Amino acid sequence: MTLAADIASRARFRPPAVPQVEVRGFWGGRIDAVCARTADTLYQRCEEAGMLQQIDPDAPAPGVKIPFHGGLVTAQMFWDSDFGKVIETAAYCLQRTPNPELERKVDHVIDLYGKLQQPDGYLSSWYQRIQPGLRWTNLRDCHELYCAGHLIEGAVAYCQATGKRQLLDIMCRFMDHVAEVLGTGPDQKPGYCGHEEIELALVKLARVTGQQKYMDLARYFIDERGRQPHFYDAEAREQGRDPQDYIFKTYEYNQSHLPVREQDKVVGHAVRAMYLYSGMADIAMEYGDDGLRLALERLWRDLTSKRLYVTGGLGPSADNEGFTADYDLPNESAYAETCAAVGLVFWAGRMLGLGPDARYADMMELALYNGAISGLSLDGATFFYENPLESRGGHHRWTWHRCPCCPPNIARLTASIGSYMYGQSEDGIAVHLYGDSTATLDVAGGRVRLVQETRYPWDGAIALTIEPEAPASFTLHLRIPGWCRKATLSVNGEPQDLAAITRNGYAAITRRWAAGDTVRLDLELAVERIHAHPEIRHDAGRAAIRRGPLVYCLEGVDNGVPLNSLVLPADARLTPRDEPALLGGVVTLEGQARARPASDWGDDLYRTVPPAEHPVRIKAVPYYAWDNRDPGEMLVWVRTA
Amino acid sequence: MTLAADIASRARFRPPAVPQVEVRGFWGGRIDAVCARTADTLYQRCEEAGMLQQIDPDAPAPGVKIPFHGGLVTAQMFWDSDFGKVIETAAYCLQRTPNPELERKVDHVIDLYGKLQQPDGYLSSWYQRIQPGLRWTNLRDCHELYCAGHLIEGAVAYCQATGKRQLLDIMCRFMDHVAEVLGTGPDQKPGYCGHEEIELALVKLARVTGQQKYMDLARYFIDERGRQPHFYDAEAREQGRDPQDYIFKTYEYNQSHLPVREQDKVVGHAVRAMYLYSGMADIAMEYGDDGLRLALERLWRDLTSKRLYVTGGLGPSADNEGFTADYDLPNESAYAETCAAVGLVFWAGRMLGLGPDARYADMMELALYNGAISGLSLDGATFFYENPLESRGGHHRWTWHRCPCCPPNIARLTASIGSYMYGQSEDGIAVHLYGDSTATLDVAGGRVRLVQETRYPWDGAIALTIEPEAPASFTLHLRIPGWCRKATLSVNGEPQDLAAITRNGYAAITRRWAAGDTVRLDLELAVERIHAHPEIRHDAGRAAIRRGPLVYCLEGVDNGVPLNSLVLPADARLTPRDEPALLGGVVTLEGQARARPASDWGDDLYRTVPPAEHPVRIKAVPYYAWDNRDPGEMLVWVRTA
Repeated sequence: MTLAADIASRARFRPPAVPQVEVRGFWGGRIDAVCARTADTLYQRCEEAGMLQQIDPDAPAPGVKIPFHGGLVTAQMFWDSDFGKVIETAAYCLQRTPNPELERKVDHVIDLYGKLQQPDGYLSSWYQRIQPGLRWTNLRDCHELYCAGHLIEGAVAYCQATGKRQLLDIMCRFMDHVAEVLGTGPDQKPGYCGHEEIELALVKLARVTGQQKYMDLARYFIDERGRQPHFYDAEAREQGRDPQDYIFKTYEYNQSHLPVREQDKVVGHAVRAMYLYSGMADIAMEYGDDGLRLALERLWRDLTSKRLYVTGGLGPSADNEGFTADYDLPNESAYAETCAAVGLVFWAGRMLGLGPDARYADMMELALYNGAISGLSLDGATFFYENPLESRGGHHRWTWHRCPCCPPNIARLTASIGSYMYGQSEDGIAVHLYGDSTATLDVAGGRVRLVQETRYPWDGAIALTIEPEAPASFTLHLRIPGWCRKATLSVNGEPQDLAAITRNGYAAITRRWAAGDTVRLDLELAVERIHAHPEIRHDAGRAAIRRGPLVYCLEGVDNGVPLNSLVLPADARLTPRDEPALLGGVVTLEGQARARPASDWGDDLYRTVPPAEHPVRIKAVPYYAWDNRDPGEMLVWVRTA
Repeated sequence: MTLAADIASRARFRPPAVPQVEVRGFWGGRIDAVCARTADTLYQRCEEAGMLQQIDPDAPAPGVKIPFHGGLVTAQMFWDSDFGKVIETAAYCLQRTPNPELERKVDHVIDLYGKLQQPDGYLSSWYQRIQPGLRWTNLRDCHELYCAGHLIEGAVAYCQATGKRQLLDIMCRFMDHVAEVLGTGPDQKPGYCGHEEIELALVKLARVTGQQKYMDLARYFIDERGRQPHFYDAEAREQGRDPQDYIFKTYEYNQSHLPVREQDKVVGHAVRAMYLYSGMADIAMEYGDDGLRLALERLWRDLTSKRLYVTGGLGPSADNEGFTADYDLPNESAYAETCAAVGLVFWAGRMLGLGPDARYADMMELALYNGAISGLSLDGATFFYENPLESRGGHHRWTWHRCPCCPPNIARLTASIGSYMYGQSEDGIAVHLYGDSTATLDVAGGRVRLVQETRYPWDGAIALTIEPEAPASFTLHLRIPGWCRKATLSVNGEPQDLAAITRNGYAAITRRWAAGDTVRLDLELAVERIHAHPEIRHDAGRAAIRRGPLVYCLEGVDNGVPLNSLVLPADARLTPRDEPALLGGVVTLEGQARARPASDWGDDLYRTVPPAEHPVRIKAVPYYAWDNRDPGEMLVWVRTA
């Protein structure tokens, strides 16, 4: 079977809306922190930064420099996007926990956007308040549609959570205006945004409004990107700018160097890339577009076989906030922006729209549990922008960031995690992620309540109870993670032959389901060492430690010697230990290693006698939980012997 | 014996002038490249950059942006210093090899400086041509005296080489003016330069002119530095600047955070630090100043026990072009500016002025043969600014640099190496560095010709012939390098008991020397592995390879696998091999290692099965000679098992 035929044969799976899934357990705790702390913090920081003033047409137009936290901040052209994500985060939280004060504030922000919107539908606080008269003159650099995209996502979520349509209507009017201005028609500009985001947002807008025109607009942005004659060349010349005067003199930075169907390397700004591929995946599914799908397969292979950190982090360089060369994955200087790992979750989740495939779900899980959620402190109050895999003790979460894209991004992802856990199609339910939760899903023309009970990721035992409104035939697709060496499955107590029913990494149980049917899945969570491709020179002679979906790290606070002086012998066992009182409750890994401590070395900086080795106990904690205690060293890739 | 008493008991050793030493062998080849290529190149680049226009009072004053190599360069306030170093390099070369064309050009530059000099003696092309009216208003940042220092060094060298005094007279007039303007008197500014250099230059000027006033001015600059109330605070306030507005908000950057005698950490900009300590060492010797000497001992210990690369490179960070934290010595991102290693040679050489001590000579040799000379290509045409200890293939020598301090610095050091090889005192000769050469030295009231025949550093056999004008009693101090495990010495064929006559790492042979006396020293050049202090996390589990004074590295061109996939087993022997046709003639080291090549790994980026190991032949070349062939990877610290 060719790949294309394989694609065509699969059902389309759509994610449930956030309100369809009640999340408990590990992710429930993380969402509670977002609801209790992050959601309010995000709004507060935006307010402190002067963003309310920027969007309020009755307030004096702010200068470009705005007082903030005792200094001055530069007003940012992408602030509307931050409000969009703040609204989106608030929406998911309001749906879980009433917060009238926050809801009032969000309503106020939406009112201001309503007042700000131009009669023709245009909406951009930057171009209306800071740089008036310049709208649609610099699509390449100025985030005009990117901001709109985030406001759309906020509008969709807020409508789903509260039933309030005001922002949704605002954004529909704006998009109707966009569809007039941009396009391939005679009086239109064939433009698209330099920072992708609008594409996936329009897909959400189309789905929630049922309006195909928004889906078609998303498809236009995908199709037009990178075509010759190049829009950004023409735009630059029209504005008297030199088209060559762009980051590293290539449009790779914003993935418009080639038509998207011809791309096969993940390049440029990592977040932009992930958002583009997410939109492409949506469009591939919605239109059954195999050209897009094949390009995505190539890009996926490139990312996962050459350009991804073991934590699911991506984009090693601060210079372009993005990709560099194959196998260039330095650990201490890793940029690995939180938003990029969040974007990978988006992309992988959307690849699952084309049918269950554990390649995508495994990667979604990896990024989620490691490189993404590391961006948020356990108490929900502080944020990583960069997520290095090694620190000598100076890297800590911020209370805010000059470019505050990451805090609301990881917050909205966390708070909406339920919609990534499951997929629903006409005749199937897919469980992509395990976690204590209850989902109410649309399948086989009815509603099915699915109760998942588990201590995952700390324990691999998963009990599912299936409760259709009425007995119904459909397939339950259960992911068997790629990292799992041993899994057992039973349905109503009857053992199943997993090998026989597993395809693309999902066990498919097709039957007529009745209320009270139970499924039991046991995944062995082994402690394993991960070795890196020999071309990743930064990881040579080192191993990462993984248990189930979690990548572990060493922290200075748990280990009394310089972390790079440690060597983990090939035969050293690491033993899991439940520590409910540590870091919000984690399983740690402990074992015996060897260290070359500085204590018995002396004053020489260099010498011909190698340092003496001593046995030492080591303790590893999940990577996502690092930097939540005393500051100190951190190391993912441990030296091995 | 206390340290101070020990100091007082030692004779003062002065370096010979460059014309006193005829250099052959290894360094002779390097000097020939400077004479044949570098000296002319340096002048040419300065001319192309518009520097002649800047110093010519009859030319139109240049703008701050000047056309250069197809683009625009910013005129630099330190360009006079580059001319100073160009003149100094030319001087040493003219002394070795006549070059009438170059001499004519230098004479022209000196004529222009003569015309440019103000009637009161002031001289600065920046403050006279680019920022007129602002002289002596920003000693902290604007390199006014730093430039003067380099012009002085050029003047001294040019006078010694050609007998022409014009520039020397110009600089004496300028320094007479400086001594009026700056000082602690009632109508003087208690200022000193933000970039040290003038101190050591004034010592040279004092020695060549015999004028104590220049020595005293140097001492004033040393003494005043860092005193309270702080001169730079006052200067900034006077100019309406905030004194806090300085690099990292500390005067550590230019070593004026404390009076120099109270300093005990090497901090800030590495080149500035080295130049300051060099000047301090000169003044400590000239005035028998034990307070300075003790400070220098502390600083030396700090540098060599915590902050020095194994190549003798120093200053790991580009942010401050200097020092960071103890044991912070990253390899790939090492700044390790060529000028800083050159500065360490200056400092170490001047510490030897207080008497032979192999601690200093060993370090001088280390920096010279590795971190300094690496800055110049074998053909003398291209230059490193940074000298990393690891490269993935993208680091190459430049034809020039926007801040062109390093090219003429390594050139002038190389061309004047003879004066670092020997020391002369009233009753002794010290041989600090071995190398084929003939020196004519002043000792015991007469002249002694000393012929050194050796293939050093490739071979450790050294034959010395001593030829005094008339038989004379004095001590010949021969350095026994700290890296040497086995040395034998004979005088006129008679074996000597080295242990009995060696003190501070120098064998002292006191006798009445007559023409034709011969000394034979054999130093074993073993191949050794160097291990780094366990706190240097970048070198954990790795070893550097050294043979004699040379640190070796692996280059991609000699080794067919990714260099970090190589492991050098503990028992692997590396065998020296003479390769006269390679890299201008070097000894390479070859042996058996293990590699984990990517070839049999497959497509996975990460996996749980460790990579397979294969035996592989490796070949190491001297670090200084890297990047003179096909571009590729380079690695000093090789993984060990």
